[in-house]
Amino acid sequence: MATDSALTTEQILSATEDALRRFGPAKATVVDVARTLGVSHGSVYRFFSSKTALREAVTERWLAQAHDDLRFIAIEPGPAAERLHRWLTTLFAAKREKALDDPQLFATYLTLVAEASHIVDAHVDTLIDQIAQIIQDGIEKGDFRHTPISATARAVLEATAHFHHPAHAAGWSDPAAEDRFEALWKLLLRGLAADA
Amino acid sequence: MATDSALTTEQILSATEDALRRFGPAKATVVDVARTLGVSHGSVYRFFSSKTALREAVTERWLAQAHDDLRFIAIEPGPAAERLHRWLTTLFAAKREKALDDPQLFATYLTLVAEASHIVDAHVDTLIDQIAQIIQDGIEKGDFRHTPISATARAVLEATAHFHHPAHAAGWSDPAAEDRFEALWKLLLRGLAADA
Repeated sequence: MATDSALTTEQILSATEDALRRFGPAKATVVDVARTLGVSHGSVYRFFSSKTALREAVTERWLAQAHDDLRFIAIEPGPAAERLHRWLTTLFAAKREKALDDPQLFATYLTLVAEASHIVDAHVDTLIDQIAQIIQDGIEKGDFRHTPISATARAVLEATAHFHHPAHAAGWSDPAAEDRFEALWKLLLRGLAADA
Repeated sequence: MATDSALTTEQILSATEDALRRFGPAKATVVDVARTLGVSHGSVYRFFSSKTALREAVTERWLAQAHDDLRFIAIEPGPAAERLHRWLTTLFAAKREKALDDPQLFATYLTLVAEASHIVDAHVDTLIDQIAQIIQDGIEKGDFRHTPISATARAVLEATAHFHHPAHAAGWSDPAAEDRFEALWKLLLRGLAADA
């Protein structure tokens, strides 16, 4: 139990995730979260002004976890093609792990994500910016041909939705999934490369 | 009302679609279908041995409608790049029309499709075969580079999921959707083309 004075945002978000896992997105309340932490629901409201704000914060944290390693790949040195491949496979692996390890919590987050499209949009923009950074490096070094960077970065993210968008999670345990990703990657890389 | 003796498969499937639209996938029954047609539920069972068989048949018809024009594009003469572009935009337009014109029925079909993955798999295989046919033509005429045809055809379908998979329907009314599709198409075409 946390004492009221030592309560942190991270504790509240973790307790919220527990409540969501136990009661599901339709039934989990701020009172459940407060009870888990041994504090009053007023204490929770001092951190998050509403149940919606709390759910959004936990959704944002969940999405951010999926791409925490990605931003390092985006700024590393090294050939753009290799980094973009690693960035995409890391994203795919992170999403697949979340979906397969804890399918119930994953399903819960699908509900939360559907409620908070502006948070998803911000998440997608972050991912597109990272891809754009790699593509720009590739163009500057002459590995990738000149293209409108931002539109191409979005196209790469959308083209690979099959391997990171939660709606396609049912196919991620298919043993053929990795080969299919590689076939798609080859096609995209030929599309990006300065010469074929 | 159809008399029992004149009853056709098409009538039953249309009545089933009506029942699904009115009562939703959870509540629509074979009795509802029979009542709409003015026949006994036994008459319906002479065509479809179970409620599951009936739901699968209506799902199959619905999916087939989305790609009825596509098979002609796959076998037409003409440059492969132009045909593949037209095939993809026709698929996108057909799905978008279904999603936006009758969102409730579209949502119903999402439920049915989730119940009948073998029917969806067959649908996807049909689409991949059509893309493969166009890619093969393109390779034979020297417009497309040599690639493993079937794997590349699947990669093209998966790469464009954002614009035809029902899970992404919420984005199809976005005014930027067509420009985004074109950016993705350019990337894919450069990946397919024999020389850049």
